[in-house]
Amino acid sequence: MSKSVDAGCANKGKMTGEIRLLTLKTESELEGLNGYLASASYLSGEVPTQIDRVVFDSLSGPPNPEKVHLARWYKHIASFSADARKQFTGVNCDLTGISVTLGPELAKGLCTTSAKPKKKGKGEDKLVLKTAKGTRDYGPQQMALRADVLEKIVKCFHRHGAETIDTPVFELKDVLTGKYGEDSKLIYDLADQGGEILSLRYDLTVPFARYVAMNKIASIKRYQIAKVYRRDNPAMTRGRYREFVQCDFDIAGTYDPMLPDVECVRVVSEILESLKLGQYSIKVNHRRLLDGLFESCGVPEDKFRSICSAVDKLDKCTWEAVREEMVGEKGLSGDAADLIGEYVKLSGGSELVEKLQADPRLQSSKAAAEGLEAMKLFLHYCSLYELTGTVKLDLSLARGLDYYTGIIYEAVLQEQAGEESVGSVAGGGRYDELVGMFDPKGRKVPCVGVSIGVERIFSLLEARNEDQSIRSSPTDVFVASAQKGLLEERMKICTMLWKAGIKAEQSYRANPKLLAQLQQCEQSKIPLAVVLGESELQNGEVTVRVVKSREEIKVKRDTLVNVLPELLATLREKENSLCEKK
Amino acid sequence: MSKSVDAGCANKGKMTGEIRLLTLKTESELEGLNGYLASASYLSGEVPTQIDRVVFDSLSGPPNPEKVHLARWYKHIASFSADARKQFTGVNCDLTGISVTLGPELAKGLCTTSAKPKKKGKGEDKLVLKTAKGTRDYGPQQMALRADVLEKIVKCFHRHGAETIDTPVFELKDVLTGKYGEDSKLIYDLADQGGEILSLRYDLTVPFARYVAMNKIASIKRYQIAKVYRRDNPAMTRGRYREFVQCDFDIAGTYDPMLPDVECVRVVSEILESLKLGQYSIKVNHRRLLDGLFESCGVPEDKFRSICSAVDKLDKCTWEAVREEMVGEKGLSGDAADLIGEYVKLSGGSELVEKLQADPRLQSSKAAAEGLEAMKLFLHYCSLYELTGTVKLDLSLARGLDYYTGIIYEAVLQEQAGEESVGSVAGGGRYDELVGMFDPKGRKVPCVGVSIGVERIFSLLEARNEDQSIRSSPTDVFVASAQKGLLEERMKICTMLWKAGIKAEQSYRANPKLLAQLQQCEQSKIPLAVVLGESELQNGEVTVRVVKSREEIKVKRDTLVNVLPELLATLREKENSLCEKK
Repeated sequence: MSKSVDAGCANKGKMTGEIRLLTLKTESELEGLNGYLASASYLSGEVPTQIDRVVFDSLSGPPNPEKVHLARWYKHIASFSADARKQFTGVNCDLTGISVTLGPELAKGLCTTSAKPKKKGKGEDKLVLKTAKGTRDYGPQQMALRADVLEKIVKCFHRHGAETIDTPVFELKDVLTGKYGEDSKLIYDLADQGGEILSLRYDLTVPFARYVAMNKIASIKRYQIAKVYRRDNPAMTRGRYREFVQCDFDIAGTYDPMLPDVECVRVVSEILESLKLGQYSIKVNHRRLLDGLFESCGVPEDKFRSICSAVDKLDKCTWEAVREEMVGEKGLSGDAADLIGEYVKLSGGSELVEKLQADPRLQSSKAAAEGLEAMKLFLHYCSLYELTGTVKLDLSLARGLDYYTGIIYEAVLQEQAGEESVGSVAGGGRYDELVGMFDPKGRKVPCVGVSIGVERIFSLLEARNEDQSIRSSPTDVFVASAQKGLLEERMKICTMLWKAGIKAEQSYRANPKLLAQLQQCEQSKIPLAVVLGESELQNGEVTVRVVKSREEIKVKRDTLVNVLPELLATLREKENSLCEKK
Repeated sequence: MSKSVDAGCANKGKMTGEIRLLTLKTESELEGLNGYLASASYLSGEVPTQIDRVVFDSLSGPPNPEKVHLARWYKHIASFSADARKQFTGVNCDLTGISVTLGPELAKGLCTTSAKPKKKGKGEDKLVLKTAKGTRDYGPQQMALRADVLEKIVKCFHRHGAETIDTPVFELKDVLTGKYGEDSKLIYDLADQGGEILSLRYDLTVPFARYVAMNKIASIKRYQIAKVYRRDNPAMTRGRYREFVQCDFDIAGTYDPMLPDVECVRVVSEILESLKLGQYSIKVNHRRLLDGLFESCGVPEDKFRSICSAVDKLDKCTWEAVREEMVGEKGLSGDAADLIGEYVKLSGGSELVEKLQADPRLQSSKAAAEGLEAMKLFLHYCSLYELTGTVKLDLSLARGLDYYTGIIYEAVLQEQAGEESVGSVAGGGRYDELVGMFDPKGRKVPCVGVSIGVERIFSLLEARNEDQSIRSSPTDVFVASAQKGLLEERMKICTMLWKAGIKAEQSYRANPKLLAQLQQCEQSKIPLAVVLGESELQNGEVTVRVVKSREEIKVKRDTLVNVLPELLATLREKENSLCEKK
């Protein structure tokens, strides 16, 4: 098989033969391309070439807008007609930068052998401009959206009286050892530079448990929003990065049954409501009930955990595949698997709990009875917190983590037309043993908590916000001048506005053109401009312009700090009522 | 010299001899002690012993409140009278935990040989519960103060139209290489686990320059608040950690002279005003002026940088020491040094610029003339931004970093009675070459920026806030019950309040005692309590209690969501007017 492609050549047969090679499908390949385009306008050189056309044609459609560079490139190439694309110049392919992420095979496939790669010359050992694998920068637009989401979430945490803490980004490696099972291989270690052996945190739960134990805290309700690190080696699936934000809310302390647990679920519900993500439901289950179920169905006790992790796959796999794992791989009897199969179909409210409490098979298990009693109380509390209808007992919910000891839950969004399935956007449960693993005397502090899947929520909202309606510039007023020589007056007006707490900017040019200034307002969606002119200034007046409608009014200079906030308030009101009509 | 101390022994001569060993003075020793006390109430065992007394007596006074555990221990030991301290039991010293950070010498000094260390038994290989060296956790109280400070700072950044970005916590090592001179040895490397060679970021400026170059950004005004990492190996000086927050504001783009520069200084001034830190001044200087000054004084060009770094020490050393470094170490002629010595004494406003412009020696230097012309324009702009009096040209300001190319500045707080000197709380300058170091074509993007010394500000405000007046719990209303059996009603009231956006909490006990509930309100400084009683509920009423004054009023249950916000507003107004009277 030839690994070369002469993308500039008109030999259609050969081209088709090569297109297979150029079918970029996996996320890591697309990510590689995105990374390459971060510092390049085109795939080769400074003008569009046949290589752009070939790769463009090979894509199945517009890329995920999260891949900002790829999306920008795609949009640009799409702006040419198909005929115009055929007129692109022949290739002069130089994709050395891309080879790192795409792997040598594909890079070779992309590069021509007939058209020799450009010599790099003295630039050869230039730094490759990229972020570390699996990480990315977030620009102002993305950060504005993130800040907006996090503000709503934190508001909810505060409404429930939670405080926040902060722990270091790295911990002694020993703190993380033995907490994550086989995922431990995904932990980032720091180099041994003399001194302690350190690792980057893998989640926020283990550092939180370390914090509670170390500070001998008996009770705390805290949230923490911070980045965690996982060397996920397989191709990055969509929206999964090696550095990502976690957003946790936990209640630690010895309390009466289910009261903190139900508040966690209430918090999830309030957050999902406030983010207006669409219809959602919260599945709950209980570790004791699962254990009891396995016991009643004849699963040997030493297989509880492995059968549980098989059940955990039901949200991604069919029952047949899960059954095959139980029986084929894990050596469970077919009868036991079939019995489990009947139960894990069940989902419902209090009526289901009652039905299960009357089930003769489950009645034989103390664990099941305890789990059901707990669920009954929990669902009753849910009704008091107005969560009936939102919360459902779902016997197929298992959640992988070993450290859960009681209730477990997971919030899932319902798919919306035209959107990819998002799945779980929050999850958590009770873990009563984790703090004790850190305490020198094994003193336990029962905990229950929830992690909001903010990265998934960000991705979802970014996709919905493709029209870029979120402003990243916070500026409310742009101070402009209509003619030369007014820099000093602009500076004085800016000072006046800043002192009054008004968000104001001006051009960093001494004598900017009026048109350029007004364009900046429109581009940055700054709602108001104060326009200075010589003659108005002599009358102690300035012009205030509403950027969108281009209306203008004259305002006395010394009333500006009162007039502008009023105008802004009126504009915002209009905007809001327009949004609601939509 | 004996390394043992029998702290329980009454032999005064021996004791005095040993106290030298126990004089903990360096920051790393105190930090080690603080770390040890994080998981111990006393230096040895569960009751105060002579070792507590000896170490207590060796300290020169109350420790920095940032060392929370040490400060807590100190306060506690201080609460005993000197006589009572003498009655502490004899020592049974077990300071194994402390040895890591204090170094074996001192630990040996602290441990007795006469009183054998306790055998640890099975606990011997227990995990040492600590955070990594040079890092610490931040509790709710500290985080509340930090959030408060950062909110004010961000508000100022927004007022000036800045957006924010985020970059990964680690970069390709090559990105950081060659940017920090000999400080590069302080960079944390990640372990080579296969794949890229990575390092933790050392500051936010280099990643920002990488971001601007990589994304081909021509202009941006951005702020970034994030943690950076430095393996500072010498004893940690007060408030200097290996993980700490930086808070940067930068303006990148090609603009007219001094307009972005003066806005940075205006931003610093607004921030320091809003934080009410006390009197401050902003020193400015210009790299061209410094170069011209050195040139005029006869410094050979290849010595500019090293002489500059000597001048940089003038804020910490006397002129004599700096002169000695110039002449003795760096081989400058005594005459040249003395000339420089005359200039670096100078500090002033526009009148100083005029005087220097008339100085025959400086007139001979093109660089000096350019620097002075730039300073003249800058100081004129400062007057328009109402910064005259705050900003002063100071010829002794040099700032170490190699990458500055134009104006440099530094804000310093004036010492207040009873406080330690804080020194610089913000600094920055113009760096026009850094982005070009990353751009494959060397394309330059001029930048000017400022870094707010938030860690110093946090320390200062924490010390001032020792009375713990900042609340960390955000809760406004506590929903309590006066008798048993009212859990369900409490839950319903909570739901009603949450839905109305009111920050509310209740006990996680089904039937808590009223006194316990009211105590929680007082401890957490929750301003209002809603108290439920059977008979009031039957009348559709609840009791609202102002926690501080213990006033109570009866409120109709269905008007609660209107009455509570009004009451809170009134309480807050009172509080504020009280604060102002103080």
